[in-house]
Amino acid sequence: MAAASIITIGDELLIGQTIDTNSAWMAQELNKIGVWVKRRVAVGDVWEEIWNALDEESKHSEIILITGGLGPTADDITKPLLCEYFGGKMIVSDVALQNVKDIFTKLNRPIIERNLKQAEVPDVCTVLNNKRGTAPGMWFEPHLTSPKGEEKRIYVSMPGVPHEMKGIMLDYVLPQLPSLFNLPAVYHQTLLTAGVGESFLADMIKDFEEALPAYIKLAYLPNYGMVRLRLTGRGDDKAAVEKVVDERFAELKLLVKEFMVTDVDEPIEMTIGKILRSLNKTMGTAESCTGGAIASLITSIAGSSDYFKGSIVSYANEVKENLLSVSHDTLMTVGAVSEETVTQMVKGALAQLKVDYAVATSGILGPGGGTAEKPVGIVWVAVGNKDKIVTQKFQWRFDRARNTDLTVQNALNMLRKFILIN
Amino acid sequence: MAAASIITIGDELLIGQTIDTNSAWMAQELNKIGVWVKRRVAVGDVWEEIWNALDEESKHSEIILITGGLGPTADDITKPLLCEYFGGKMIVSDVALQNVKDIFTKLNRPIIERNLKQAEVPDVCTVLNNKRGTAPGMWFEPHLTSPKGEEKRIYVSMPGVPHEMKGIMLDYVLPQLPSLFNLPAVYHQTLLTAGVGESFLADMIKDFEEALPAYIKLAYLPNYGMVRLRLTGRGDDKAAVEKVVDERFAELKLLVKEFMVTDVDEPIEMTIGKILRSLNKTMGTAESCTGGAIASLITSIAGSSDYFKGSIVSYANEVKENLLSVSHDTLMTVGAVSEETVTQMVKGALAQLKVDYAVATSGILGPGGGTAEKPVGIVWVAVGNKDKIVTQKFQWRFDRARNTDLTVQNALNMLRKFILIN
Repeated sequence: MAAASIITIGDELLIGQTIDTNSAWMAQELNKIGVWVKRRVAVGDVWEEIWNALDEESKHSEIILITGGLGPTADDITKPLLCEYFGGKMIVSDVALQNVKDIFTKLNRPIIERNLKQAEVPDVCTVLNNKRGTAPGMWFEPHLTSPKGEEKRIYVSMPGVPHEMKGIMLDYVLPQLPSLFNLPAVYHQTLLTAGVGESFLADMIKDFEEALPAYIKLAYLPNYGMVRLRLTGRGDDKAAVEKVVDERFAELKLLVKEFMVTDVDEPIEMTIGKILRSLNKTMGTAESCTGGAIASLITSIAGSSDYFKGSIVSYANEVKENLLSVSHDTLMTVGAVSEETVTQMVKGALAQLKVDYAVATSGILGPGGGTAEKPVGIVWVAVGNKDKIVTQKFQWRFDRARNTDLTVQNALNMLRKFILIN
Repeated sequence: MAAASIITIGDELLIGQTIDTNSAWMAQELNKIGVWVKRRVAVGDVWEEIWNALDEESKHSEIILITGGLGPTADDITKPLLCEYFGGKMIVSDVALQNVKDIFTKLNRPIIERNLKQAEVPDVCTVLNNKRGTAPGMWFEPHLTSPKGEEKRIYVSMPGVPHEMKGIMLDYVLPQLPSLFNLPAVYHQTLLTAGVGESFLADMIKDFEEALPAYIKLAYLPNYGMVRLRLTGRGDDKAAVEKVVDERFAELKLLVKEFMVTDVDEPIEMTIGKILRSLNKTMGTAESCTGGAIASLITSIAGSSDYFKGSIVSYANEVKENLLSVSHDTLMTVGAVSEETVTQMVKGALAQLKVDYAVATSGILGPGGGTAEKPVGIVWVAVGNKDKIVTQKFQWRFDRARNTDLTVQNALNMLRKFILIN
């Protein structure tokens, strides 16, 4: 199986200013075509660090993908380095030059010397035209001879801007790799469980796991208090691998039946969308502590306007009263963070947004705002339709961001379950 | 300056199932105390890969921080590997055992053999108690002798679950490193610019950049169509480094004055919160295409209830009419994605939410839904108060997620500017 190393270049990754989302996307796409990402390495904008990384990763992998370090500013040194590393000299690429000119014409911005420099490339690479930005991708395929004979190594340098990198990967790298390397079929099946710990699950399916053939691997992936189980099969015979993984997956589903949420590897907001669309039903949200995060996640799915009508984010009590008709009395006696309030919020959302299903949240996510009676981390969630409302109380014990994520994921799971049976 | 390598272990990182947010957080915190993260490496749950990574990173750095691979399941092999690597044998840690028992008592879940295994550690490490989970942190400080004499190397293994890793970093690692290594002072100053490209900016401040002393570095960080500029100074004399960086930063601010958004390194939702709190004013949102993402970002800031009252997410036209009083006629003639609609949405939000400022969005974020007249990527944004409303049209050309982020960031910047002058 061909192995890849991903090298990301840039100080911003090493001082933590940027979270590396590129590598995850690249790994997913490479995995689909049977390339195993063996290592991911991040180094700064430092000549010898980049050089070292190229040397080291060449020992580990046949495919070396490099992102970042190609900007027009002085801290970006990757291009001259690659030129020297592969023994070339810098020339102007006509393709890249035309691309830079086209982009500046479109943006209606003046073009300066520094922009034109973006079109310079080592003469020992193949230019991969970047349709979404000025820095071209560069493909190096040096002919190496090793004691074992000819060894193939390819090196591709791409910009670090995610949508530019993705364009070059999709246009050139992913289509070309299968013709250069002997890639196996890779096949995943994933299911999601809720309400059971990783250790307990592992014990439940111990015998199943031990009986798996060597070419099928089981992984446990914790996910907001739930656990995803993934089977991955690899082999030369695509149909055979898929058949065996599917058989084992069917076994696994039976074993964890009582805890299984879904057997499709997709985010829960997508699962909910599919269910609502199939039922021709609509939904909305009434959010206090989650502040619109549930609505935002639901609408991150393209086409969600088919089933999502809107949300009333009632952060202030006044908005809960005025727009969701939560009773003043309830707010004054049991307070905003209560079963009564979230129940009334669901009713208000159903009426105001004219939807079939609504979900409501109210809680204290921290770090401040807790009391002895209602400590930080307390959250009430309600989901319902015109006939029935169910509620649940949660007590999280993490930071604000994680408490929010946990509330959103668990509220969506309550909604999913409610829709399926009501 | 002491160098650190971060090794993350786990197949989920290499198949792209998980985005590595741990490394960015760790790098930020290490940077604050003067530790330079030289390399970040991710490897899978494979014995020789992990072993290799330890060998290699030991050559690069004095501080090797390892996350992941410590779960209770069979795919986690890091603990026995570390035991062998450092020549120890496994024993039960009383501290870790008590911690496991306490956690299961609190969760009211039955404890099984596999959980108790979590309390086993190599006898050659110091246990770092994990207050937020069952897997203990482990601190290894082997005494190494090199040709140059005694060399200090420390290795810390932590769980991959972000809040558990953070707890161990904050409780033990970050407080202890300064007494073990001679750490320099590190000092950053960052400003944000809008409306100017990276190349143009680089040309504007070319002379400034070239005149910087070697111990001060300038970085360009693109950020949703804006560009952040960061000065970083390093040195032994904290006061002197800060003084020089502050002087240069004052110069830089003058040079880019006309494009500067803020000279504080904080997210724009925090800047807006500070301004509103200082003015004792409130805000709300009326969101169509952003689906609650603006409200969600505003409320991600603790204490935002002081100035944020709520949001009406009007994804459906019906909700725009019913809750925001957008005229049926407007929706039928010029449509939902129009200057008129977002203007009326702002008016509706001001009235319904009873806030001082409101921001509204309506657009087509893709991939579907575009027409010849209103192509994918078109977005109208309006911000206003009772006296005045300003609008702006954007035309994005990326994918749904990036188009959403760009809309949110630019809407927030419009709101910030509006509040400052109105």
